[in-house]
Amino acid sequence: MVEISSHIHEGAMAFLSRQYKALAVFVLLVFAVLLIFIDWQTAICFLTGGICSALAGFIGMTVATKANVRTASAARNSQNSALGIAFSGGAVMGMSVYGLGLLGLSILYIIFKDPEIVNGFALGGSSIALFGRVGGGIYTKAADVGADLVGKVETGIPEDDPRNPATIADNVGDNVGDVAGMGADLFESYVGSIIAAMTLGAVGFATLGIGGVLLPMIIAAGGIVASIIGTFFVRTDEKSNPLKALNAGTFSSSILLVIFAFFAVRSLLPQESFGVFWGLLAGLVAGTIIGLITEYYTSDEYKPVQGIAKACQTGPATTIISGLGVGMLSTLWPIIVICIAIIIAFLTGGLYGIAISAVGMLATTGMVVAVDAYGPIADNAGGIAEMSELPHNVRETTDRLDSVGNTTAAIGKGFAIGSAALTALALLTAFAQVAEIDSIDLLNPMVVVGLLFGAMLPFFFCSLTMGAVGRAAAQMVEEVRRQFREIPGIMEGKSKPDYAKCVDISTASAIKEMILPGVLAVVAPLAMGLWNVLALAGMLAGALASGVCLAIMLANAGGAWDNAKKHIEGGAYGGKRQRSSCCRGYRGYCG
Amino acid sequence: MVEISSHIHEGAMAFLSRQYKALAVFVLLVFAVLLIFIDWQTAICFLTGGICSALAGFIGMTVATKANVRTASAARNSQNSALGIAFSGGAVMGMSVYGLGLLGLSILYIIFKDPEIVNGFALGGSSIALFGRVGGGIYTKAADVGADLVGKVETGIPEDDPRNPATIADNVGDNVGDVAGMGADLFESYVGSIIAAMTLGAVGFATLGIGGVLLPMIIAAGGIVASIIGTFFVRTDEKSNPLKALNAGTFSSSILLVIFAFFAVRSLLPQESFGVFWGLLAGLVAGTIIGLITEYYTSDEYKPVQGIAKACQTGPATTIISGLGVGMLSTLWPIIVICIAIIIAFLTGGLYGIAISAVGMLATTGMVVAVDAYGPIADNAGGIAEMSELPHNVRETTDRLDSVGNTTAAIGKGFAIGSAALTALALLTAFAQVAEIDSIDLLNPMVVVGLLFGAMLPFFFCSLTMGAVGRAAAQMVEEVRRQFREIPGIMEGKSKPDYAKCVDISTASAIKEMILPGVLAVVAPLAMGLWNVLALAGMLAGALASGVCLAIMLANAGGAWDNAKKHIEGGAYGGKRQRSSCCRGYRGYCG
Repeated sequence: MVEISSHIHEGAMAFLSRQYKALAVFVLLVFAVLLIFIDWQTAICFLTGGICSALAGFIGMTVATKANVRTASAARNSQNSALGIAFSGGAVMGMSVYGLGLLGLSILYIIFKDPEIVNGFALGGSSIALFGRVGGGIYTKAADVGADLVGKVETGIPEDDPRNPATIADNVGDNVGDVAGMGADLFESYVGSIIAAMTLGAVGFATLGIGGVLLPMIIAAGGIVASIIGTFFVRTDEKSNPLKALNAGTFSSSILLVIFAFFAVRSLLPQESFGVFWGLLAGLVAGTIIGLITEYYTSDEYKPVQGIAKACQTGPATTIISGLGVGMLSTLWPIIVICIAIIIAFLTGGLYGIAISAVGMLATTGMVVAVDAYGPIADNAGGIAEMSELPHNVRETTDRLDSVGNTTAAIGKGFAIGSAALTALALLTAFAQVAEIDSIDLLNPMVVVGLLFGAMLPFFFCSLTMGAVGRAAAQMVEEVRRQFREIPGIMEGKSKPDYAKCVDISTASAIKEMILPGVLAVVAPLAMGLWNVLALAGMLAGALASGVCLAIMLANAGGAWDNAKKHIEGGAYGGKRQRSSCCRGYRGYCG
Repeated sequence: MVEISSHIHEGAMAFLSRQYKALAVFVLLVFAVLLIFIDWQTAICFLTGGICSALAGFIGMTVATKANVRTASAARNSQNSALGIAFSGGAVMGMSVYGLGLLGLSILYIIFKDPEIVNGFALGGSSIALFGRVGGGIYTKAADVGADLVGKVETGIPEDDPRNPATIADNVGDNVGDVAGMGADLFESYVGSIIAAMTLGAVGFATLGIGGVLLPMIIAAGGIVASIIGTFFVRTDEKSNPLKALNAGTFSSSILLVIFAFFAVRSLLPQESFGVFWGLLAGLVAGTIIGLITEYYTSDEYKPVQGIAKACQTGPATTIISGLGVGMLSTLWPIIVICIAIIIAFLTGGLYGIAISAVGMLATTGMVVAVDAYGPIADNAGGIAEMSELPHNVRETTDRLDSVGNTTAAIGKGFAIGSAALTALALLTAFAQVAEIDSIDLLNPMVVVGLLFGAMLPFFFCSLTMGAVGRAAAQMVEEVRRQFREIPGIMEGKSKPDYAKCVDISTASAIKEMILPGVLAVVAPLAMGLWNVLALAGMLAGALASGVCLAIMLANAGGAWDNAKKHIEGGAYGGKRQRSSCCRGYRGYCG
């Protein structure tokens, strides 16, 4: 167990250090640009933001890759202790995202006293998030698809089987994608939402006073305390569904935050601006509802996933159609909920209210990241149990924890998407204020040109990352096939596959393939802004609108497919035997 | 042959008459609403528009379902005569769309002399288009998927095999989806673009004079003549690729239109407004380029489709990923081309220039519809040849014509999407003018709420129609299985399956399932407009932005998958034997 875990730990650290080396070049380049063209204060903030985000990823990853083996070990005794270890591992990631984000922000604000300069901190976080999410995503999916295509599909060995050379890479991928990637992502939204609210607070100084600038940071600080208290509510027994324990943690921290925010708004803002509190409440409630909607569409206890499982009976074509259908359908309610939150926040607190609602949604980020990072730890623990040939009941416990992890990951994604939408809107408004744009008029064809171009960007971006995954997975398939062919005795378990080679392939591909999408995301707005600043504003709105929908659709379709698979593996429609009975559907193909 | 053709003809007519009966209720309802709340003139225009669009569909369908058997018969002699008959059949549809659209519009304009009233005509066309496209689409895909799932996949009999009870429904579907559906769709865009340009022409009366109102109709009339002349260029010999002949027709009619438009703009508009001509040229060139881009992404002569065919070697998962990737990637250039066209048209001719560029793009609609409707006729001819057991070389000729049909259909869709984007933009501007909205400001959160909601609508709409297809296809599968089980001797070809029952199922499902998406498309803007007119404007922009991208992605992914299949069937990677060799990839599943 320790050996396998150390393989995973080393693989993850190797990836992280190579990724950060590549990012260091990029960050220093942007640092130089900011130094020359803007000012040294912004450049320093940018550098600090990048370092803080990277540090949070590093700490979280170290803990997560150590917690997996302990979770597997604890699962030998009880579900509660396994849950506790897995969750604490995730919580470290959550608290580092939080703590480093807020700490860096506060110190820089105390030094520079200007939200516009501190914005550089958010930009630094964004840079790491961008490459962290893309690179981590390519890594994890290339390893996952590659391992499954040759392992499960071609040679018929189960998932996480130690005979599969790509197994370690697959488990490393869970960490770099979901722990480090998601953490960097939420770091960006978290810091971005606070700074956007501070900027709008500074703009509304006349009516809000200095409280408008301080409130976002105070709420964020309250959110940290609320999350820490919330973690104490995460406990379970042998029989309960672990999801309940995780939900108890999330809900209790939300309620604590609301109580705290009530007093914070009352004491910091003038009485006539108390409406801002309702905006915050709307954001928090919206985040929770989107999480629940996401759960409905991605958990196998409800109709959508069961419908996909049923469609699997008629082959891959109907499986894909019904999964895409569920993904598209699942955009309806989250968007309506976001719209209602925007309307409430705007009517009660104006543009500043919208920004504060994003802060409220993200204030319990620590808890969301903790619950989210818990997933890959439990998943890894299952992999370690399988590879170390621990007793069957250990794997059952980790599987139960893991299947909850799929749902919590989906909820985390729902939260991340919802808050990203609100934050993007707040940032758009803040951008217009800073750039002194009075109006972004859709009757101006240049704005529409930007809108169309922006709406296309998420599609193009997706095609780039999907292409990258495809190429990296194909390389992985080739390598695994080569090892099966050239290393004698692998299939009999007599000799060990070369795990490191597969980890290398994923790492190298991810680093190489993250460059183009990353550069696109940096260059597209720059180029558009140099041409026409109104077109840039339209582009941001277009990318926001289509990006949110596409993100919800893809995240939920993916989660739903994954859980439909687990639903079948869990016994529905004949359980794992499905694989052979499925062949009946293919009679035409199988001749 | 005659018997099979009459089955298809009767099935198509039965669907059309049932659909029109259902639509009559809807049209009369809206007629009453317009009569009471707006005025009788608009109500009359609406009714006329609905009737003209339905009539165009009816004429086109009658001819197309007669032309298929003649094409099959002509294919016994020569490729040129088969092409001639298939294309003429499509041309009738094209010219009816055109002729009835322009004729109705002109007469109503002469009577009422107000583009705002004549707008009712476009609304009538939209109603039919909406239901025609949705109902026809559900019909054709339910029949197609249902027929293939049981026929090709489950029992291993080839496509269009007369033993498959769903074969006739499948062939009927080609007609109701691609001929009637596409015709109604382009009728809507065609009429909409002309009226939007007329409205903006009337708004700019002070500078443009009455020529601004007349120009759109004059250009449309010139487009008819150009298309008719263009049809004479469609001829081929035994060896050439029929695509060349069809392209010759399209290009020559475009060139003729440009020459005509040059003189029309010069004589109708004041000299300082000549720039409008460049807008028109930009629209026409953009349409052609989008068509060529579409061809690149959907023809098996280029890398994208070949890449999908290659991905098929590793199973359905990689096939789906690469297909979706190609679809997403294919949004990049069409959007950039549309953006450039908008910029050129706006800089040279203002908002009116953008409207005229849409008219230019659609002026040769007759040709586009002709080339597009040609596809299903050739496809049907192949089906008839297969079912009537005509000699092998007949099927080869129709297959060659049909494979070109896939590309032309994709080009037609590209044109339809591009022109829809420009028309929607022109209509949005016209709407703002008529509703006296000065600015649709993205800094107003209500506009952003509309934008987000609008961007979500195409996704939701797709999920509804995909769900409808899934349900209808499942019913079809059940019915085909039942017939195989209960009618003895079907598989040996000794007794005939009950084709009519399958046609009934598709018809009934399509009529039933088109209601919800149709009502959504009518109610969503109404409800939004009653709440907040700026949110409605935002919604239209959001639906335009995400709808165009989603449409390009889905149309091109579908076309690319279809042609990847044909590429493999045509001999790549072992040809049709692929089906059994594919099974090697599934060893894990097949046990």
